Amino acid sequence: MLTSELDADTAVQEIAPGRFRACISDRWNLGAAPNGGYLSMMAVRAITATLPHPDPFSITTHFLRLAKPGEVLVEVERVRDGKNHATAQARLIQDGAEILRALVILGDLSKIDGPTHITVPAPALSLQECTAGWPAPHLAVISGRLDVRLAPGTTSWLDPACSERAELGGWIRLRDGRAPDALSLAFFADALPPPVLNLSIVTTRFVPTLELTVHVRARPAPGWLYAWFRTRALSHGYLESDGEIWDSSGQLVAMSRQLARLNR
Amino acid sequence: MLTSELDADTAVQEIAPGRFRACISDRWNLGAAPNGGYLSMMAVRAITATLPHPDPFSITTHFLRLAKPGEVLVEVERVRDGKNHATAQARLIQDGAEILRALVILGDLSKIDGPTHITVPAPALSLQECTAGWPAPHLAVISGRLDVRLAPGTTSWLDPACSERAELGGWIRLRDGRAPDALSLAFFADALPPPVLNLSIVTTRFVPTLELTVHVRARPAPGWLYAWFRTRALSHGYLESDGEIWDSSGQLVAMSRQLARLNR
Repeated sequence: MLTSELDADTAVQEIAPGRFRACISDRWNLGAAPNGGYLSMMAVRAITATLPHPDPFSITTHFLRLAKPGEVLVEVERVRDGKNHATAQARLIQDGAEILRALVILGDLSKIDGPTHITVPAPALSLQECTAGWPAPHLAVISGRLDVRLAPGTTSWLDPACSERAELGGWIRLRDGRAPDALSLAFFADALPPPVLNLSIVTTRFVPTLELTVHVRARPAPGWLYAWFRTRALSHGYLESDGEIWDSSGQLVAMSRQLARLNR
Repeated sequence: MLTSELDADTAVQEIAPGRFRACISDRWNLGAAPNGGYLSMMAVRAITATLPHPDPFSITTHFLRLAKPGEVLVEVERVRDGKNHATAQARLIQDGAEILRALVILGDLSKIDGPTHITVPAPALSLQECTAGWPAPHLAVISGRLDVRLAPGTTSWLDPACSERAELGGWIRLRDGRAPDALSLAFFADALPPPVLNLSIVTTRFVPTLELTVHVRARPAPGWLYAWFRTRALSHGYLESDGEIWDSSGQLVAMSRQLARLNR
């Protein structure tokens, strides 16, 4: 069996207990920098390789310095071991400097139970109603790894008829057919362009993430994911982006929020 | 000048560089346990005492073990120093065990600039339209520290006419007159009962927080705060609670999200 691109490029090799060597690929770049969700997934992979719990429940990632393609060291610290949950931290070190820190809660999504009551609106558009292609292929090497079909009217920088709404979303999957799992939601939660680009007062195209938290709610079914991102408060150049991700069976599988800043 | 209750009870005393002694008060209890936002604020206070940046921008707190009133050690690690932002971590240690870990981005809210575009709905109800008092005074020592006026119909456990909507909010301030500031938003973001209690399928009254992230957007003006909390996805006993906090001048000052779990 061939290893998928995403699995190959987030592979970690243990060189000592809790200490891993990995290689940041340039295949997930946005502009010159590796995608943040891709780096976050690498950190979580090292954590799940260290602890017995199979699934991330909550992933908070701080992007400390610009990463670059090439070798990286991942150091995992076990923070708390529990019956239902464990907590661990991973740090990505490149050229001696910490470039990323992730604080993660782990558990087993196949064993959770309790009441369910969901009022988040389900995907509004079918795959056929969305538009194939990546909105800015010249900027994003990552687009070669993905199939993306975006909702019409959510990409103002391509579509002059687009509304001034800071929302963007649609269907997404890995182009090589690798099915989504709980781990890969760390990647998908940061895989689309920032919805704030739809506002005409925003002139930069670079919106670096300071902090990204992903709550994984269920293991996704195989197939496409539907992801929707929304910014409701751009204030003095800082903004949140809230994401909701559903799987092909209509199950809500993740919610995400990031704090980002318009590049000056 | 008298020290306010919240400042007195989150005071930290440096005993070595980046190492503080503090005392968890029982005046902020919910049931038998100290309120999570109160503990988070104590962690951030130790961080702002260590780094030169005055304001927290992003605060992620993991609640690892039940805290109890009494002595606690706070250890601060400087993760990254930058011109606009710094990142630091604080750990609360009680009886030799880590009970809380906070990862914080700092900066100076008086110096941020850039475009603003906010579509979060502003407070819908005046102070006079809300109901004085805490919804369950027998459960919460913390209620003695607060003035709270909640929106009618958002406390189902008191009001049988309440809708099945997992929303709760209203006006809040510290009873001793201490004005809100950026630091205290770590506390206010977790100071009201969980909105998920409004759902009749929820039978427990105990909803422990696993992870809480607060994004501070502005320094609040003096006076009351208006805080609104909402749960949209309770799934298999796990839930998010999203909060928005405005100040008395109508400015959005914080957004929060937490992952919690219904107690089994």
